[in-house]
Amino acid sequence: MGILPFVAEAGLIDHHCHGVLRTDSTRAEFESLLLEADEVSVLGGSFFDSAVGFAVRRWCAPLLDLPRHASAEEYLERRNSLHITEVSRTFLMASGIHTFLVDGGFQPERLLSGAELASSSGADAHEIVRLEHLAESVRPSVSPSGFLAEVRSRLASSSAVGAKSVAAYRVGLDLPGARPADPDVVRAVSAWGSGRLADPVVIAWLAWEALDAGLPLQFHAGYGDSDIDLHRCDPSLLTPFLRATASLGVPVLLLHNYPFHRQAGYLAQVFPHVFCDLGLATHGLGHQASRVLAEALEIVPYGKFLFSTDAFGLPELYYLGALMFRQALSDFLADGMHREAFLDDDAHRITRLIASENATRVYKL
Amino acid sequence: MGILPFVAEAGLIDHHCHGVLRTDSTRAEFESLLLEADEVSVLGGSFFDSAVGFAVRRWCAPLLDLPRHASAEEYLERRNSLHITEVSRTFLMASGIHTFLVDGGFQPERLLSGAELASSSGADAHEIVRLEHLAESVRPSVSPSGFLAEVRSRLASSSAVGAKSVAAYRVGLDLPGARPADPDVVRAVSAWGSGRLADPVVIAWLAWEALDAGLPLQFHAGYGDSDIDLHRCDPSLLTPFLRATASLGVPVLLLHNYPFHRQAGYLAQVFPHVFCDLGLATHGLGHQASRVLAEALEIVPYGKFLFSTDAFGLPELYYLGALMFRQALSDFLADGMHREAFLDDDAHRITRLIASENATRVYKL
Amino acid sequence: MGILPFVAEAGLIDHHCHGVLRTDSTRAEFESLLLEADEVSVLGGSFFDSAVGFAVRRWCAPLLDLPRHASAEEYLERRNSLHITEVSRTFLMASGIHTFLVDGGFQPERLLSGAELASSSGADAHEIVRLEHLAESVRPSVSPSGFLAEVRSRLASSSAVGAKSVAAYRVGLDLPGARPADPDVVRAVSAWGSGRLADPVVIAWLAWEALDAGLPLQFHAGYGDSDIDLHRCDPSLLTPFLRATASLGVPVLLLHNYPFHRQAGYLAQVFPHVFCDLGLATHGLGHQASRVLAEALEIVPYGKFLFSTDAFGLPELYYLGALMFRQALSDFLADGMHREAFLDDDAHRITRLIASENATRVYKL
Repeated sequence: MGILPFVAEAGLIDHHCHGVLRTDSTRAEFESLLLEADEVSVLGGSFFDSAVGFAVRRWCAPLLDLPRHASAEEYLERRNSLHITEVSRTFLMASGIHTFLVDGGFQPERLLSGAELASSSGADAHEIVRLEHLAESVRPSVSPSGFLAEVRSRLASSSAVGAKSVAAYRVGLDLPGARPADPDVVRAVSAWGSGRLADPVVIAWLAWEALDAGLPLQFHAGYGDSDIDLHRCDPSLLTPFLRATASLGVPVLLLHNYPFHRQAGYLAQVFPHVFCDLGLATHGLGHQASRVLAEALEIVPYGKFLFSTDAFGLPELYYLGALMFRQALSDFLADGMHREAFLDDDAHRITRLIASENATRVYKL
Repeated sequence: MGILPFVAEAGLIDHHCHGVLRTDSTRAEFESLLLEADEVSVLGGSFFDSAVGFAVRRWCAPLLDLPRHASAEEYLERRNSLHITEVSRTFLMASGIHTFLVDGGFQPERLLSGAELASSSGADAHEIVRLEHLAESVRPSVSPSGFLAEVRSRLASSSAVGAKSVAAYRVGLDLPGARPADPDVVRAVSAWGSGRLADPVVIAWLAWEALDAGLPLQFHAGYGDSDIDLHRCDPSLLTPFLRATASLGVPVLLLHNYPFHRQAGYLAQVFPHVFCDLGLATHGLGHQASRVLAEALEIVPYGKFLFSTDAFGLPELYYLGALMFRQALSDFLADGMHREAFLDDDAHRITRLIASENATRVYKL
Repeated sequence: MGILPFVAEAGLIDHHCHGVLRTDSTRAEFESLLLEADEVSVLGGSFFDSAVGFAVRRWCAPLLDLPRHASAEEYLERRNSLHITEVSRTFLMASGIHTFLVDGGFQPERLLSGAELASSSGADAHEIVRLEHLAESVRPSVSPSGFLAEVRSRLASSSAVGAKSVAAYRVGLDLPGARPADPDVVRAVSAWGSGRLADPVVIAWLAWEALDAGLPLQFHAGYGDSDIDLHRCDPSLLTPFLRATASLGVPVLLLHNYPFHRQAGYLAQVFPHVFCDLGLATHGLGHQASRVLAEALEIVPYGKFLFSTDAFGLPELYYLGALMFRQALSDFLADGMHREAFLDDDAHRITRLIASENATRVYKL
C-alpha cells in the first residue's frame, strides 16, 4: 500500500487541531483518547481492538523503536519509559505538518499551547478562537449589554486567524437564517446567566460576530463525543445560515462531517464561501480512511477541501491523521490516474490544494 | 477501465433531462453549468478542478478533435470556434441516447425544446410536464376555484408521458399522507395569489392530480442547486405520500437521490409503484460514479431502476451522464460476474432493464 | 472470491432471527419473503432480479442438487419436490450457526418455534421476548394498573435471554431521555385500550422495564418492511434514551441499521452499553454485502459488533445471511491484512469476537 511520493512529501497545514497532553497517560486514559468514548467499557473490550488501535500498533510502534504490530502492553510500556516531550516531538516531526491552527479552548490546562506545540516540532502555529469558550470567559465580568461590546472588541482585536463554533455540541446545527437582533441577544445573555453556554440565540450571534470580524468560521459537524445528538449535527441543517451569510464573503469551514461528509461536499459545492474537511475521520478510521475520503471528494471542488487531524491529547493522532490522510489521498489520486480521470500534473495540483494551498488562501496565512 | 461491450452498445432512454443552450457559453457560464453552484467562487477556484471538470477535459475534448486532458482554455477556445449546433449534435449523438423525456419547465427560453433536441440527434423526445410551472402559468388567467378545473383539464388532455414535481425545492418532501380536499386547495390558491408557487397544499394537490390523470410522477430528491435544504429532500420523507398512493397503481419516480440513494432503493423495494435513478449523480461524480451506482443498486430490484442524465444546458452533460453511467454499470456487472453472483445472460438482462426496458414499461412508450 | 478458512469455519451465534415457515411456498410467497415488500409488483418485475434473488440461484441451488445459477422456475420446482423439513434442515445445517436467539413474536402461527428450529439442525436456541407482543397479549386480561405489574412480573420471570423493541415500527426511535412515570403509563395504557400497541409512552416504558429486568435490549433500526418511516428509524434518534440508560449497565443492541450503519457504529463507540449489527443487510445485499460491512466496521470497536441474519420464513435466508456475512468479513479482514493493518492472529481474534464471543458476553450465554 505505497503512498505516491509527491503525496508522501507534501507539507501539510493542519487547519483544525488541539494540543497534546503535558503528561504520560495511563492505559485507561490512552484508550479513551483513541476514540470518542468517555471510557473503555467492560462490556465491550479494549479500544486497541479498533481501527485506530490497530493503527497505533502498526504505524506508531516503529517510531518508538518497537516492531510493527507490537502489543498494546509493549507499546504503552515503551512509551512511558520515554519522556513525553520526546514522544510528542517524535510524532509531531514525523507528521510532516508545518503549520498548526490550534483550537485551544477545550481543556487548555491539560494541553500544550499552540506555541509550545509548534516549538516542540519546529512548526508554525496560529490560534483559532473558540467562540463559546470566549463567551463563557467574558461573561462573568460584564453586564449583559456590556457582553456584546466586549465580545465584539475581543474578536476585532484578536490575533486568531479564525474562529470555531461548537453549536453542534450545544444546540445542534439548525441555526436561524437571520442575524439575531441585539436586544434579543441581550435578553438571551441575561437568561443564560453564566457557566456553560447553551443558548441558541447567543450561539448564533457569536457565529455572525465572527464573520463580521472577518474571521473564517469553523463549525464542528458530524460525529464527536457522547455529548452530541448526531442527527442534529448534519451540516445540511446549517443551510439557512449559509444562505444568509454567503454575501459576507467570509469563509465557513465544516469540520469532520462523518457520516454526513457527502452532505458537506454538497454545501461546499453550492455555497461560494463554504469549505469542508474530514478531520477526525482520518485517524479514526485507520486503514479504512481511503473509502471515506473518496466519498468526501465526490462532488466537492478540489479548491474547497482541506486537511486537518482534529488531534487531541495524544501526539500519535497527529501522526496517524497525517499518515492516513496521505494514504487515502494517494489512493484517491492513484485510482483517478488509473481511470485516466486526470494526469500526473493534475494530481500534483490537487495535492497541493488540499494539503496546504486551500488553507493558505482561506486563512490568509 | 474498459466498458463491457453490451453495456457500451445499449441504447438508452434518458427519462429525465432538460434542454441544451441555444448559444455559446462564456467560461463563467460554462463552469457554473458544470456544477450546481450559481457561480464560480473566487475563494474556491475553478470548477474545472472537480470530478466533472476533469471528465470534460478527458472525455469531451477528443470529440472536439482535441487531445485527451486538453486544458480548460484550449477546450473552451475550440468549443467556441465551432457552431453550438454542431457541438450539441456531436455530444448528443455520441451519448447513445435514443429517447429523451424532457422536463421543459425550467428556463425554457434559454434552451432547445424537446423536439429540437430530438431532431438535432435523430432521437425521439417526449414531454414531462412540470407541475409547478403548469400551475404558475395557469394561475393568472383563472379564479381560485377555476384553477382546479383548469389544471385538471390540462393534465387530462396533456400529451406528456409523465409529470414532475419540484416539491423538494419549494416545500421539502414531507408531503401529507392524504389527498387535500378541494375547498382547502381553493383557499390555498387564494392565499398564494400568483407568482412562484411555494404553498404545500397546492403542491401536494398537484402531485395527486398527476397520478389521477394516470401520469407517472417524478420527484426531484436529494441534491440540487443552493435553493434546496438538503435534509428536507431525503426521499424517505415521502413515505406517507407513497403509502397513500400505492393503491392507485401509477408509477412514482425518485430522481437523483444522492446522498440518499440507499433510502430511495429501500422505497423502490417496498412500494410496488416506486422507481428510482441516480440522475445528476452520474456526470456529477465523474470517475467516482461507479461506487455510488453500486450503492444505489444494493437493495433495489433491477426492474425498478432507471437511467437518466438530468443534463441541463451543456450538451457535454448528456454525453458524460451516459458515459459515466455505462462505465459504472459495467463496473457493477463485471464485479458481480467476477463474484459469480450472476452469469453473462443475467448481466445482459439487467442492462436492458435499466438502460431502457424499465422506462418503456413505466412510461408506456 | 475465496473466504479465509478461519472465517469459513467459525461457529456463529445468530443473535437476531425468526423462525422458518412450516410449509412449502408458492412462487409469490417465496419472492415476497426474499425482500421487505409485501408482494411482487406487476410494474417492477420479478424479485429474483435482485441481489438476494441472484444469491438464491447461485448459492442455494447447489444445496438442492441443482446447478449453480439454476433458473427461478427450476429452483422452486426442485424445492417443492422435497419436504420442507428436509429443505430447512439442509440450509440451517449449512449455515454453520450453532446458536439461535429467536424473536418469536411476529406471526408465530406460521413459523417453527425456536426449539423446533434448533432441533431440526442440532443447534441451541434461546428466546428473545418481543416487548410489544408481550404487552399486547397481556393487555386484555388485566386492568391498566394491573398491566404494569403483570408485565414486570413476566419480564422478571422470563426465561428469555434478551428483549426486543419494535418502537421503530410503531412510533419511531426518538424515545424520550427519561423513564416514564407509572401514573403516566397507566393513563397511556387506558387510552390505548387494546390491540396493536402504538403508544409512545407505553413503548418507552417497556424498554425501560426490560433493562430493569436485566434483559439485553434489541431495537429494530434502519430498513424493514413498508410499515416503517425510514427517517424515523435512524438509530441516532435513540441518543437521549441511550444517554439516560448508560448507567444501568445493561446492553442495548441496534439491529440492521442500514443505511444508518455508520450512525450505529458511532453510538456503539461512544456509549459503553451499546452494540450493533448489520442483520438483514447481509442476505439483503447479496454480493454487495462486503462494502456495507466494511462501512459498518469503520469506527465501531470490534468488541461491539455482532453477527445476525434476521432470517424470517425462508431457511435459505439463514444460509445466505451466514454465507454473505462470512464473505464480507473475510473481505474486510483480507483487505486489512493486505494493508498491514493487523496480523493473522488479530484477524482470528476479530473473527471470534464478531462471530460469537461478543454475543456470548452480552447475553451471558
